[in-house]
Amino acid sequence: MDGSISLAYKRMAVILDTEVTVMLSTKVDFNQELIMNWHFSDKAMNTTTSIIREILKMASQPGIINFGGGMPAPELFPNAEVKDAACRAIEKYGPPMMQYSLTQGVPPLREKIAERFSKINDIDVSGDAVQITSGSQQGLDMIGRAFLNPGDYVLTERPTYLGALQAFGFYEVKYCTAELESDGICIEEAEEQIKKYSPKLIYVVPDFQNPAGISMAVEKREALVELSRKYQIPIVEDNPYSELRFSGEAKPSIQSLGGSSVINLGTFSKTISPGLRIGFLVGCPDVMRMIEKVKQGNDLHTNTFTQYVLLEYLESGHLDNFHIDVLRREYGQRRDTMIRTMEKEFPPDVKFTRPTGGLFLWVTLPEHVSTTDMFQKAVDAGVAYVPGKPFYPHGDVDRDFRINFCNATEENIIKGVERLGEVFRLVL
Amino acid sequence: MDGSISLAYKRMAVILDTEVTVMLSTKVDFNQELIMNWHFSDKAMNTTTSIIREILKMASQPGIINFGGGMPAPELFPNAEVKDAACRAIEKYGPPMMQYSLTQGVPPLREKIAERFSKINDIDVSGDAVQITSGSQQGLDMIGRAFLNPGDYVLTERPTYLGALQAFGFYEVKYCTAELESDGICIEEAEEQIKKYSPKLIYVVPDFQNPAGISMAVEKREALVELSRKYQIPIVEDNPYSELRFSGEAKPSIQSLGGSSVINLGTFSKTISPGLRIGFLVGCPDVMRMIEKVKQGNDLHTNTFTQYVLLEYLESGHLDNFHIDVLRREYGQRRDTMIRTMEKEFPPDVKFTRPTGGLFLWVTLPEHVSTTDMFQKAVDAGVAYVPGKPFYPHGDVDRDFRINFCNATEENIIKGVERLGEVFRLVL
Repeated sequence: MDGSISLAYKRMAVILDTEVTVMLSTKVDFNQELIMNWHFSDKAMNTTTSIIREILKMASQPGIINFGGGMPAPELFPNAEVKDAACRAIEKYGPPMMQYSLTQGVPPLREKIAERFSKINDIDVSGDAVQITSGSQQGLDMIGRAFLNPGDYVLTERPTYLGALQAFGFYEVKYCTAELESDGICIEEAEEQIKKYSPKLIYVVPDFQNPAGISMAVEKREALVELSRKYQIPIVEDNPYSELRFSGEAKPSIQSLGGSSVINLGTFSKTISPGLRIGFLVGCPDVMRMIEKVKQGNDLHTNTFTQYVLLEYLESGHLDNFHIDVLRREYGQRRDTMIRTMEKEFPPDVKFTRPTGGLFLWVTLPEHVSTTDMFQKAVDAGVAYVPGKPFYPHGDVDRDFRINFCNATEENIIKGVERLGEVFRLVL
Repeated sequence: MDGSISLAYKRMAVILDTEVTVMLSTKVDFNQELIMNWHFSDKAMNTTTSIIREILKMASQPGIINFGGGMPAPELFPNAEVKDAACRAIEKYGPPMMQYSLTQGVPPLREKIAERFSKINDIDVSGDAVQITSGSQQGLDMIGRAFLNPGDYVLTERPTYLGALQAFGFYEVKYCTAELESDGICIEEAEEQIKKYSPKLIYVVPDFQNPAGISMAVEKREALVELSRKYQIPIVEDNPYSELRFSGEAKPSIQSLGGSSVINLGTFSKTISPGLRIGFLVGCPDVMRMIEKVKQGNDLHTNTFTQYVLLEYLESGHLDNFHIDVLRREYGQRRDTMIRTMEKEFPPDVKFTRPTGGLFLWVTLPEHVSTTDMFQKAVDAGVAYVPGKPFYPHGDVDRDFRINFCNATEENIIKGVERLGEVFRLVL
C-alpha cells in the first residue's frame, strides 16, 4: 500500500460494516506511575482487526457520503412502536424482565421466533430449536467456540462476510474457499476444496450475500446439502437479509432443504433494530445443547429486557403487517436509484451486482486497480466505501468494493455515485 | 457420589448462581431423517458445566425454599423508574438508541460510569478507561480472551467464584490457589504459589466475596498490590458487591491502591437489574484497547438500547439518592434474620460467615460431611443450597455450601434455615 493510504490507516478510526469505532484518547489517570508489561494471549495478539477497523474514520468526517457502513437507515426504525412495546412489556412482564434468565433465551420469545421462522421457511421447528444470541455476531462466535479447533479449515464463499472471518479467526482456523459466482458458490470448486482440506464447517450467506448481494440458486442449495451429507460437514447458513426481498420469489432456505445438518443464523438487526442486539440460531438439539453450554461461560444469557421488548413488538404484528413492507419498498427504491445512477455514471469496465434484496452491492474494477489504494482518492472526492480485500479470506484480491445502498438518502445516493464516477475518471 | 445424588444430577436442570436453565425437550422436527455425526471442538467438549448446571433443578420445584440461586430479590427491582427511564430515553435519544454503536460502549454512559466510579473509589478515571460489557460474565470472558493461553496458570482465592472458573476454564488454563482466610486471601501462600507457578493473572473478589461473603483487609489489598508489582502480574478485581454494604466503612478498592496494574470488573446486575446485562471493565488504555479488539469479534458491542435506558436511569439520581439505600436496608435485614436463625438452629460444629454486605454467606460443616451428598436430603427437607465443591478450582473440598440471603422473604429465610437445621440433626 502506498504512503498516503498507510498514513490514512494510522489516522483513521472506524465506521465499518455493522460497527463504529473511534480512537481512544489516553486520558486515563489512576494517579499511579506503574506501567505494567502486559502479556496478552497469543490469540488476542493475532487478532488482526486493526486495518479493517481503522479504514473508514474519514468516512465520518462532515461532507463525506458514507456507503461503507453496514447500518440500516436510522430514519426507518420503528421508534414509536418499540417505545410502546417497551412500556407495555414492563407493565405486562414486570420483574422477570429485569431478572437473570435462561441461557437459551426467554421461552415465549423462542416460541414466537420458532413460529415465525417455521412459517417463513415452511419447516416445523419448536422453541427448543432456537437459541437466542446477542446479535448474529455472537452466534458466529458461539459456532466457533462449539466447533473449531486451531488449524481446522472452514470453507467459505470467496468473497465472504468479514465478521465471520473475524469470529472464526479467533479460533485460529484456516480457510479454504470457492468462488462466488453470479448464482452463488461454485459447487465444483467447493467439492474440490472439501476433498483437499476436509473443512469442519461450510459457511455461506445464501440470500443477498454480504458483501456481494448475490443469492444462491436453488439447485446450488440442493447441491450444497448433498455435499454436506456426502462428506458429513455441517452447513452454517447466515441469514440476516432474506426477509429484505424487493422483488421475485423467496428461495427455500438451505435449512429447509438440509434439515439437521444445517445451523441457521437469524437476526432482527436488519428488520427492526441492531441496537436491541437480538439474533438467534436454529439447529438440532445436539448442537443447541452445545451452544448453550459454551454461551453460558461467555455471557450467561442475552439481555432479558430487550428480549421481552422484542417479544411484545413482534406480538403487536407491526413488523409483519406493516414495517417489513416499508423497508422493502424504501430500500428497493434506494437500490433502484443507486443502480440507475451507477449505470449512468460508471464506465463500462466497472462491473457491479444488481441485488434484489438486502443492503449491499459489490463493485468490481479492472484488474490493474487497487480499491485499497483508491480509497484515499474517493474520500478526497467526498465518498467512502469498504475496500473488498478484507472480504477475501486470503486477502489476495483488491479490485472490488462494497456499497451499502440502504443507509443514505436518495439525494446522497445520487451525489455519492457521481463522486465515485469522478474518481473513476481519474483512476481508470 | 452415591446413587441417589447421581440419579438426582441426571434428573435435574438448574438454578445455579446467576443462572437458570431447564432441560430441552427434543421436539425439533426439520422433516429430515439425517443425523449428523457432530465433531465439536476440544474446548467445547472439555467445558464441564453439566454437573454444576444440573445440580439444582429440584430447587425450582414448588415448596422448596431455594437459597441456591445468585439472583437479587425481584420484588425490589425499580420497575417503575426503569420504565420511566426507558420511555424518556427513547424520546430523548431516538434512533441512535436503536442503531449499532461503539464496541467500547455508548460514550455518555461510559462518562457517567467513570464519573460515578471515580467518586465511589476516590480515583480519577475518564470514560476512555471504561469498557461496557454484557454483564460481568462477559468481562471475565474477555479477560480470558485477552490474556490466557492454554496451560497458563491463574491464581485465585480458595474457594472462588465459579463463573470465573467457567470463563477462564474455556481457555484451558490451570489454577493455583491461596486460602481464603477470614480477612481475605492468605498473602504468604499467594506468594509461594506465584513463585512456584508464575500465574498470568491474580483473580480476587475482595468485597463480600462470592461464595464466602468475606472481605479482604486493607493491608492484604496493599500486600497483593505489592506482589502484583514485584512479580509483574495483573490483578483482576471482581467487584459486583462492594456497593451493597450494610454496615461499617467501605475499604479502598484494589484498583485505587494498585492503579494501572489492576483491572476492575463492575456491574449493575446486583444494584439495579441483571436483565439489563450491563457490566463494565475499568483499566488502563493498553488493556482497554485489547479488550475492545477481542470483544468486537465476540458480539460487536453491548446492547445499545439498555445502555441508554441505564444512562437515563442513572441520570435520574434514583439509584444513588434512593434505591441503593433500600437495597442495603432490606438485604441487611434479611442477612440479620438469616444469621439470627442460623445461630439458633445450627449445631455448634457448623460454622458460617457473617458478611456485612453482598448476597452470600458460606456454611462449613465438620470434615466428615459431604455437602454434595447431603444435597438430596436438604431438597427432601424442602430447602436448597449450592454445594461448595465447584467453587474450589481443584474440586478437592466438599464440606461447605453457599447460601443467598437476599433472594428469599424473611418468612422463608426462617423456614429454610429451620429445615437446614433438621437436615443437620439427621446428618451430623
